[in-house]
Amino acid sequence: MMSRPDEMDDLMAQHRQGHALPRGFYTSDAIFDYDIATVWNRNWIWVGHESQIPEPGDYFLFDYGHESLIIVRDREGEVRAHLNVCRHRGSRVCTEDSGRARVFVCPYHAWTYELSGELRAGREMGPDFDPSKWGLLPAQVIVFQGLILVCPSSDAPPLDTALAQLAPLTAPFGLEDLKVVHTASYPVPANWKLALENYLECYHCAPAHQEYSRSHTLKSPQQMEALLPDMCERAVAAGLPDQTLDLTGEAAIAHGAEVFYRRYPLFDGYKTGSKTGAPLAPLLGNLTGFDGGATDIVMGILNYLLIYSDHVVGYRFVPRGVQETDIQVVWMVRKDAQEGQDFQIEDLTWLWHVTSQDDERIIRHNQSGVNSHFFQPGPLAEMEWAINDFYECYKTMTNSTA
Amino acid sequence: MMSRPDEMDDLMAQHRQGHALPRGFYTSDAIFDYDIATVWNRNWIWVGHESQIPEPGDYFLFDYGHESLIIVRDREGEVRAHLNVCRHRGSRVCTEDSGRARVFVCPYHAWTYELSGELRAGREMGPDFDPSKWGLLPAQVIVFQGLILVCPSSDAPPLDTALAQLAPLTAPFGLEDLKVVHTASYPVPANWKLALENYLECYHCAPAHQEYSRSHTLKSPQQMEALLPDMCERAVAAGLPDQTLDLTGEAAIAHGAEVFYRRYPLFDGYKTGSKTGAPLAPLLGNLTGFDGGATDIVMGILNYLLIYSDHVVGYRFVPRGVQETDIQVVWMVRKDAQEGQDFQIEDLTWLWHVTSQDDERIIRHNQSGVNSHFFQPGPLAEMEWAINDFYECYKTMTNSTA
Amino acid sequence: MMSRPDEMDDLMAQHRQGHALPRGFYTSDAIFDYDIATVWNRNWIWVGHESQIPEPGDYFLFDYGHESLIIVRDREGEVRAHLNVCRHRGSRVCTEDSGRARVFVCPYHAWTYELSGELRAGREMGPDFDPSKWGLLPAQVIVFQGLILVCPSSDAPPLDTALAQLAPLTAPFGLEDLKVVHTASYPVPANWKLALENYLECYHCAPAHQEYSRSHTLKSPQQMEALLPDMCERAVAAGLPDQTLDLTGEAAIAHGAEVFYRRYPLFDGYKTGSKTGAPLAPLLGNLTGFDGGATDIVMGILNYLLIYSDHVVGYRFVPRGVQETDIQVVWMVRKDAQEGQDFQIEDLTWLWHVTSQDDERIIRHNQSGVNSHFFQPGPLAEMEWAINDFYECYKTMTNSTA
Repeated sequence: MMSRPDEMDDLMAQHRQGHALPRGFYTSDAIFDYDIATVWNRNWIWVGHESQIPEPGDYFLFDYGHESLIIVRDREGEVRAHLNVCRHRGSRVCTEDSGRARVFVCPYHAWTYELSGELRAGREMGPDFDPSKWGLLPAQVIVFQGLILVCPSSDAPPLDTALAQLAPLTAPFGLEDLKVVHTASYPVPANWKLALENYLECYHCAPAHQEYSRSHTLKSPQQMEALLPDMCERAVAAGLPDQTLDLTGEAAIAHGAEVFYRRYPLFDGYKTGSKTGAPLAPLLGNLTGFDGGATDIVMGILNYLLIYSDHVVGYRFVPRGVQETDIQVVWMVRKDAQEGQDFQIEDLTWLWHVTSQDDERIIRHNQSGVNSHFFQPGPLAEMEWAINDFYECYKTMTNSTA
Repeated sequence: MMSRPDEMDDLMAQHRQGHALPRGFYTSDAIFDYDIATVWNRNWIWVGHESQIPEPGDYFLFDYGHESLIIVRDREGEVRAHLNVCRHRGSRVCTEDSGRARVFVCPYHAWTYELSGELRAGREMGPDFDPSKWGLLPAQVIVFQGLILVCPSSDAPPLDTALAQLAPLTAPFGLEDLKVVHTASYPVPANWKLALENYLECYHCAPAHQEYSRSHTLKSPQQMEALLPDMCERAVAAGLPDQTLDLTGEAAIAHGAEVFYRRYPLFDGYKTGSKTGAPLAPLLGNLTGFDGGATDIVMGILNYLLIYSDHVVGYRFVPRGVQETDIQVVWMVRKDAQEGQDFQIEDLTWLWHVTSQDDERIIRHNQSGVNSHFFQPGPLAEMEWAINDFYECYKTMTNSTA
Repeated sequence: MMSRPDEMDDLMAQHRQGHALPRGFYTSDAIFDYDIATVWNRNWIWVGHESQIPEPGDYFLFDYGHESLIIVRDREGEVRAHLNVCRHRGSRVCTEDSGRARVFVCPYHAWTYELSGELRAGREMGPDFDPSKWGLLPAQVIVFQGLILVCPSSDAPPLDTALAQLAPLTAPFGLEDLKVVHTASYPVPANWKLALENYLECYHCAPAHQEYSRSHTLKSPQQMEALLPDMCERAVAAGLPDQTLDLTGEAAIAHGAEVFYRRYPLFDGYKTGSKTGAPLAPLLGNLTGFDGGATDIVMGILNYLLIYSDHVVGYRFVPRGVQETDIQVVWMVRKDAQEGQDFQIEDLTWLWHVTSQDDERIIRHNQSGVNSHFFQPGPLAEMEWAINDFYECYKTMTNSTA
């Protein structure tokens, strides 16, 4: 469909292993468009949680770039995803962010689609028209312990295989019993890759995130290692496995099927990612106590979760334009927790709100400098290894034909 | 002057007859620029009515894309149109939307042009300078029964030949005796072609235009046919010809010289396009009664009129950017009608105000979906035949060199 | 680094000597980007005055296009300029417009640079990392009688050689003893070249600048010549040389090393560029009286000064986007003059404030017309000769490889 931008080869050739990507990857409209076509449209995107659509007909939209997906529970109770593009002349079919529907009626010419995506009828389309050929284009769906991931492409990466290995590790958290209690969007005038790269390394944590660095040890690999054994003991006591899973980089099943699981210690006195160190919400799943740890989860190349003992924070870096990205942060607690009683939204969201505000600022300055004709990609630090892995994935994906 | 965008050939090849146009036609900056150069700059554009410039020196501007035209009545009383671009270093010459002028003085270096466009003098340009070579570039002008149409290109389509056939049909309406009483602009974040296509079909009328569908039969060809004979009888009685003129599609004299005339019935109880069905203004021209009909007029490929028994509504789809279009609606009544007495602006404009607001919304959703990489142009319905004709014109026009 | 836009050759070929440049030079994003890379990044830019950074560690930023420069006085008291781009992953290093610093610490990962630009240390970069290779990229600096000029390119034009000839002519003004008392920015939706061209000619002064034309004779070469002898006499009496320096056009040492000095008379009754003709501030430098003249200074192709007997006005045309330019006007008086006592800001800035507002308007109309597909570059007047010289420089500079 879409031809590879001419400048791509040059830029690929300019890139030095272990260094940042060249300017053009972050400034070119054509490359942004190609990113959407080859990376976002062909990878798994975590869009939400089953609890958001409990009943048949419940749906919500997920938008990125110029794309829009309808995520809906069909009559049989299955979660499905459809491209939100009418098969007639291309109108958005569904224009409300979320709701409950019996069918989806295109607002333009009233083409009417079942929850399953099938076209019920094409009004006045004549006798030769075969509605069965004009259903909404489907996206692939994985529901992993309540988390909904979708991929618009039919040859989606085999993330399910990798998630099968993750399943026993996350089982104690009872992810299927979560609910979303807050979502925030932090718009940043930068390319989505700069926003993602920012999340992929904690080299910047000490200088840029004062509040986070007070409680989280990732900023200092040495301190983390020192506190790890004690935390592991507490984690096991609380019902968590003493295990790490790293299906990334060379160990990945396939590009786009990366999975990563690691629990690491908070500093002493911190039971969770709170201001004071005190708990923020009821213990998740089957946990029997606070271990003072936090789990980093990676699913594919676009989706990141942070699991504390009492809540889960999800991170997405949603592209809107070549230098326009929404950092979306999603907070989840166990389904039966009562707001006001069992948790306070303001306390729950404090840490990652202030941290995201920091990120907004530093990512903006990063893009601003990268826009300079004088920007020369510098060497990555050891603590930035995950960025390198991302570059490898990214380069392979955009090297293919869209 | 301007080279054809590389992507054009591919897009042309992708287009399947009887289907919507591919995505790129609605998303590419280069194609938008080429649309202006090959379609808008070479076709007739209805810009207004003679009554707007009754006296010598009276002028108004008409802008589209990055173009600006001065429409002026010259000293001899002729209507003329000039490109509003100084022949020296390119400044806009006229910067007021309308007014009365003796000459046009460029605000930059005071090059001074006659109403006829001739350069009076180029101040301090030396002895070798020949002012006669540096007049404002002229646009072609047709005044058809008071309606002013302009075409910037010297090889304008032969619309006058086609209009000669239209003249006897519209004569009873007394178009030359109209006045413009209201103009509204509905900005829509969509390509101009999507806005125009929306106007070209009434397949969307039933689902999208509740108010319009109550009174107008076009939404249902069957109902229209059923009510047609009675209306024709009433039309003839009121002084209108019982005739249709279709110089479009295969019958067109040339691309860009399309003319179409057809009167169709409103639903019973509707004398005109009003909320209640009651008249809105004094009968036009020589009409002796309300026939409960409305006339669709097409002039070229960019200009549309709807003539009720008591008022005229003109429609234009003015391109501003690749996904920025102003839907301009112009209401006209007979010149001697008095506002407040013979007509009320609010009542007069009600129907096409609410209908344009609907269109704003559905065209926006259309563009939004067309922007998706997953958009695949679907099949057109029978009721969308006029879009197909437009595509044929469009493709021929943009196939040429700019 | 950056390849020449394809359209450049065509546009160069289209340009007729003695005429305005073709449309594409003012409308193309690619050419704008190339202008920054080949013209702005390789020429001397006047950024300010030494008095703005009196002490070691004092700095200010100067931004244009997507570039940012840190101008700082180092520990040894030398003025230096650095590219404001971290050598690690490209963040802006300095994010405050001005201030006093001991070192520059990148806000992202805390890479820390000395005032001299050297990298003090790259935190956690491992044993193989050599900080001496990763200092901030330097820009060249010339301090000419207190005026700071910078050039990011290492092969900067030999402006210093030309300035050596200017030095004795400007010596009486005591430029090194100035201070900046006001800076204003006039944003104009036009390409930077149109803003610069506007400054380069006074053919537009009579029609467009009523206030300016009342006091300044440049609008009329004949009147200027007539008043010149008397003014020269007064100038010499006041301590100024009776000399002109024209190292522009064919006489330029090199493209980008242009220097120009000429004093011309104000109309009788005007001692300086004030509303009433009365003085605005104490006499500059060693001057012993008001001669009723004003000096035009050109330094390189981007920098313009106007020196009255009692104040100096500097002009820059700072590119922000293809059709986004900030006209920056800087007012300077002698360092020991006291605001409120020796000068009033409002009086001092009046003339060039109203004149810049005029320019804003006419440059905007110029761009608007140049954007038309029908714009054909017209012939330049005799009074516009400096534009022609600028075109020659511009074409040579953009003809090279970036």
